[in-house]
Amino acid sequence: MSQKPSLPKGTRDFTPDEMAKRNFIFDTINKVFKNYGYQPIETPAMENLSTLMGKYGEEGDRLLFKILNSGDYLKNIDQTDVTNDNLSKITTTISEKGLRYDLTVPFARYVVQHRNEITFPFKRYQVQPVWRADRPQKGRYREFYQCDVDVIGSDSLLNEVELIRVIDDIFKRLNIDIVIKLNNRKILTGIAEIINAPERLTDITTAIDKIDKIGVEKVYEELRQKGLDEDTIEMLEPIINLGGGNSQRLICLKEIIGITSAGSQGIQEMQYILDLTEQLDIKAEIKMEQALARGLNYYTGTIIEVLAKDVTIGSVCGGGRYDDLTGVFGLPDVSGVGVSFGADRIYDVLTELDLFPEQVQGSADVLLVNFGEQEAKFCLKIMEVIQNSGISAELYPNPAKLKKQMKYANQKSVRFVILIGEEEIKSGQYTLKDMITGDQMNGMLSELINRIKQ
Amino acid sequence: MSQKPSLPKGTRDFTPDEMAKRNFIFDTINKVFKNYGYQPIETPAMENLSTLMGKYGEEGDRLLFKILNSGDYLKNIDQTDVTNDNLSKITTTISEKGLRYDLTVPFARYVVQHRNEITFPFKRYQVQPVWRADRPQKGRYREFYQCDVDVIGSDSLLNEVELIRVIDDIFKRLNIDIVIKLNNRKILTGIAEIINAPERLTDITTAIDKIDKIGVEKVYEELRQKGLDEDTIEMLEPIINLGGGNSQRLICLKEIIGITSAGSQGIQEMQYILDLTEQLDIKAEIKMEQALARGLNYYTGTIIEVLAKDVTIGSVCGGGRYDDLTGVFGLPDVSGVGVSFGADRIYDVLTELDLFPEQVQGSADVLLVNFGEQEAKFCLKIMEVIQNSGISAELYPNPAKLKKQMKYANQKSVRFVILIGEEEIKSGQYTLKDMITGDQMNGMLSELINRIKQ
Repeated sequence: MSQKPSLPKGTRDFTPDEMAKRNFIFDTINKVFKNYGYQPIETPAMENLSTLMGKYGEEGDRLLFKILNSGDYLKNIDQTDVTNDNLSKITTTISEKGLRYDLTVPFARYVVQHRNEITFPFKRYQVQPVWRADRPQKGRYREFYQCDVDVIGSDSLLNEVELIRVIDDIFKRLNIDIVIKLNNRKILTGIAEIINAPERLTDITTAIDKIDKIGVEKVYEELRQKGLDEDTIEMLEPIINLGGGNSQRLICLKEIIGITSAGSQGIQEMQYILDLTEQLDIKAEIKMEQALARGLNYYTGTIIEVLAKDVTIGSVCGGGRYDDLTGVFGLPDVSGVGVSFGADRIYDVLTELDLFPEQVQGSADVLLVNFGEQEAKFCLKIMEVIQNSGISAELYPNPAKLKKQMKYANQKSVRFVILIGEEEIKSGQYTLKDMITGDQMNGMLSELINRIKQ
Repeated sequence: MSQKPSLPKGTRDFTPDEMAKRNFIFDTINKVFKNYGYQPIETPAMENLSTLMGKYGEEGDRLLFKILNSGDYLKNIDQTDVTNDNLSKITTTISEKGLRYDLTVPFARYVVQHRNEITFPFKRYQVQPVWRADRPQKGRYREFYQCDVDVIGSDSLLNEVELIRVIDDIFKRLNIDIVIKLNNRKILTGIAEIINAPERLTDITTAIDKIDKIGVEKVYEELRQKGLDEDTIEMLEPIINLGGGNSQRLICLKEIIGITSAGSQGIQEMQYILDLTEQLDIKAEIKMEQALARGLNYYTGTIIEVLAKDVTIGSVCGGGRYDDLTGVFGLPDVSGVGVSFGADRIYDVLTELDLFPEQVQGSADVLLVNFGEQEAKFCLKIMEVIQNSGISAELYPNPAKLKKQMKYANQKSVRFVILIGEEEIKSGQYTLKDMITGDQMNGMLSELINRIKQ
C-alpha cells in the first residue's frame, strides 16, 4: 500500500514560513484595496468551458485544465470517433468544466450574472489562485495566485489615477521601489494609422511590446517577417526611439500622431493622468512609454505596467482599461479599468532584496515547557491567563527532555519560553527566557506578561 | 458570440456582502488557531490521483473531480477499449490528477513529503476549498471551504484538551452556544468485543452513529439487515440507551465494558480529558456520547463532534485522533489529532440566529462627492489626507447627479459622505453627512476627521 508521495508538476506546497511571508504580501495588498473602497468577491475554481473557451486565444484554450464529466462520461462517445483528429470534439463531449485561467473572465461573467444586484461603478478586488497547463519552469507555476482590482461601469480617468495611487501605496508599504509605465491603446492606434498600417495594429503592438526584452533590431526583424515593408518600418523608427521625459515625449508624439483622431485622444488622456498624478504624493517613478502594449488585445485605453527598480524580474503588476469586457456575455458598453498584482513575483523581489520584515513569522509568542503531568495540568490554567491577555501561547504536549523542548521553540522561532516546575508552582515565581537575547527573569505571572508585552 | 453566462451546478459566487460575513468567520477561526501556536500551510488544489484514490472508499473515488491530461490525452487509448465496461481503465489513462476531496489526505501527503524539515509535534491549520462531485442540494455544494486544525507527532491527550479549548474559544467569539460531544474509538471497540462481535465493529459503529438522525428502532433494523442476531442486538441495548451525566455514563460503561482492554483504556482516556476540561474556563457543554462514531474509519482514539445548540443543522465541527494517517504514504506510527470547522454551516447558523455583527460590511468609511472636474481634482488631495489618517475613503469617479451619488453611498453602506463644492473649496469649510443618523456638520478637514474617528 505504501507509496512515495509527490505533487503534480508545476504545483507547490506552502510551508508555515512561506505562508507567513505570502500572507504579509496578501494582507498588505488587501488592506490598501479596502482603504480605497474596493470590495472583495470570490468566484468558484470551476467555470463552464463555454465561459472560458475562446477568451484567451487558441493557445489559451489549449492551456485550460479541463475536468472530466462525472459518472459515465463515455455514454455519448462513438467508439469510431476516438481518434486524435477528433480530439477537440471528444474533449467537448467528455468535459464541460474547466479551472479558471485568470480572474478577468470570471469577473466579467460575474458582473453580467449579478448586474441587477451590483451598485455601479463597481469597485471589486479578488485574490484567488488560477491554473494554467503551461510548461513549468523557474518562476512559472501551473497554480498561482492573482490579485486583481478593477472598477467597472465608469469611464472616468479618475479611476486610472486612483489605481496608480493604489499601486504606489502598496509598493510603498512593501518597501519596493518601482517604475509605473503608462501608455494608451489609442496612442498605439494613432501610430498604426500615421504609418498607414491601421490594419496591422496587432502585429505592430505585439512586436514593439517586446522592445525591452529583445531590443530594437529584433523588433524590426519581427515586423519584416510579419510583412511590413521597409518604408513603414522606417516611419516607425522615430516613434519607437522617442526618448526624454514624459512632457518631452508627449510634445513630440503630438507632432507626429496628433492629427489622427485616436492619437490625439490618447495623448489628451495621458496628459490628464500625468497632470493629476503630479499634484499627488506619489513616490513611484511614472514613465510614459509609447512602445508599451502588453499582450492582451482587450485593452482599449490606458495601459499600465509596473516594474521593480532594483531587480530584473519582469513586471510585478499590470493592467489597463477595457471598454467591452462583458460584451461577450451579453452586456455591451460597460467600461472598466483594472490591474493585477503578481504575488509570486512580488515574493521573489522581497526575497531577493531581503525586504521581508522579521516579524512575519506565524509562531506563538510563548512556549510553556512541559515538566510532567502535574506541571502540565497547572500550565493549562496559566496558558488561559496568558492567551486572554492577548499573547499567543502553546504548551508542549509531551513531558519530553528540556533540551528537546527548547529546540522546538528555537526551530519554530518562538520568542519566549516559560518554565514552571514543581518548585515554581509552590513559590508562584516562574522563569521566563527570551530566546533571542538569552535573558532570563523570575517573577509572578503578571510580571512575566508585562515583560513579554514590551 | 453573446451567451447567457451561468455557473457549474453546485458552485457559487460570493458577493461583497457574503465575503464580508465569510471573512468574519475565517478571521475569527484563524486568529484563534494562531493564538494557540498553530501555523498555516497550503497545498495545491490538484493532487495526483494516486495520492487521492482509495482513501475515501469506493463512493469517494467516484466523487473525485478528475482532470483531463494536457495535450494529446488519447494517444495511449486503444479505440476498442472505449466501452463503458472499461470506464475506470480509460479514466486512469486519460486523467492523472484530481481536485482535493478534503484537507486531511493532502495534509498526510504533506507531512510525509516534508518530514525532514518539519518540527514535530507539528501544529498546523489549513483553510482552503475542497471539491466533491456530490449531488448538489440545499446546503451542500460541490466546492466548499474546510478549516482544519491538527497536531501531528504527539500522542499526548493534552492535544485533545487544547482542541476542545480551541473549539470553545472560536464559538465563544462567534457567540454561538454549542455542545461538544465526545467519544473514543476504543470505547466502541470495547462495546463490540463485549457483545462478542469484534469483527462487526464497522457495521455497528456505522449503524449506531445514525442514532440521532434515524432513531433507535431504525438503528436496530439496520443492524439486523447487516446480519447481527437478536441476542447481540439485545446486548447492545443498555449500552446504546445509556443516559445521564458524563460521570454517571462513565461509571456504567466501566461496569459493562471495563473488563475489555480497549474499553478500559478508552474510558481512562475519556476520564482524563473530562477531568482536565472541567478545571478550565470552558463555556461549551461537554457531553460524553457512547454512540458517537462519525463516518470515518481512521479514527483510533478520541472522537469529537460539535453541534450548535439553538439550530438543527447538523454538526458545525468534528474530528478525532488517528494513529496511522501517514502510514499509507510510507511513514507509519505517527499519531495525530485534529478537527475541521464547516464554514458554510457556521455561516448558516450565524444567519439563522442573526448573529453577524453589523460592522462586518467591507465598504469604505467615507465617500467624497464628485461635483465636477475642478472639485474632483481638489478632492484627490483631500482623500490623501483622509486615508493617511487611517480612514478608508473613495471619490465618486464621475460628476453624476448628487442623488445618484448618495444612493451609491447608501447601497454600499458607506457611513459618511463629504461634500466639497466650489463654495466649500473657497471657505475651507466642508460638509460631512452621517448616513445612519442623518446628522450633518460643517467644519475644517481636521474637525471632520475627528468626528469620523469617533
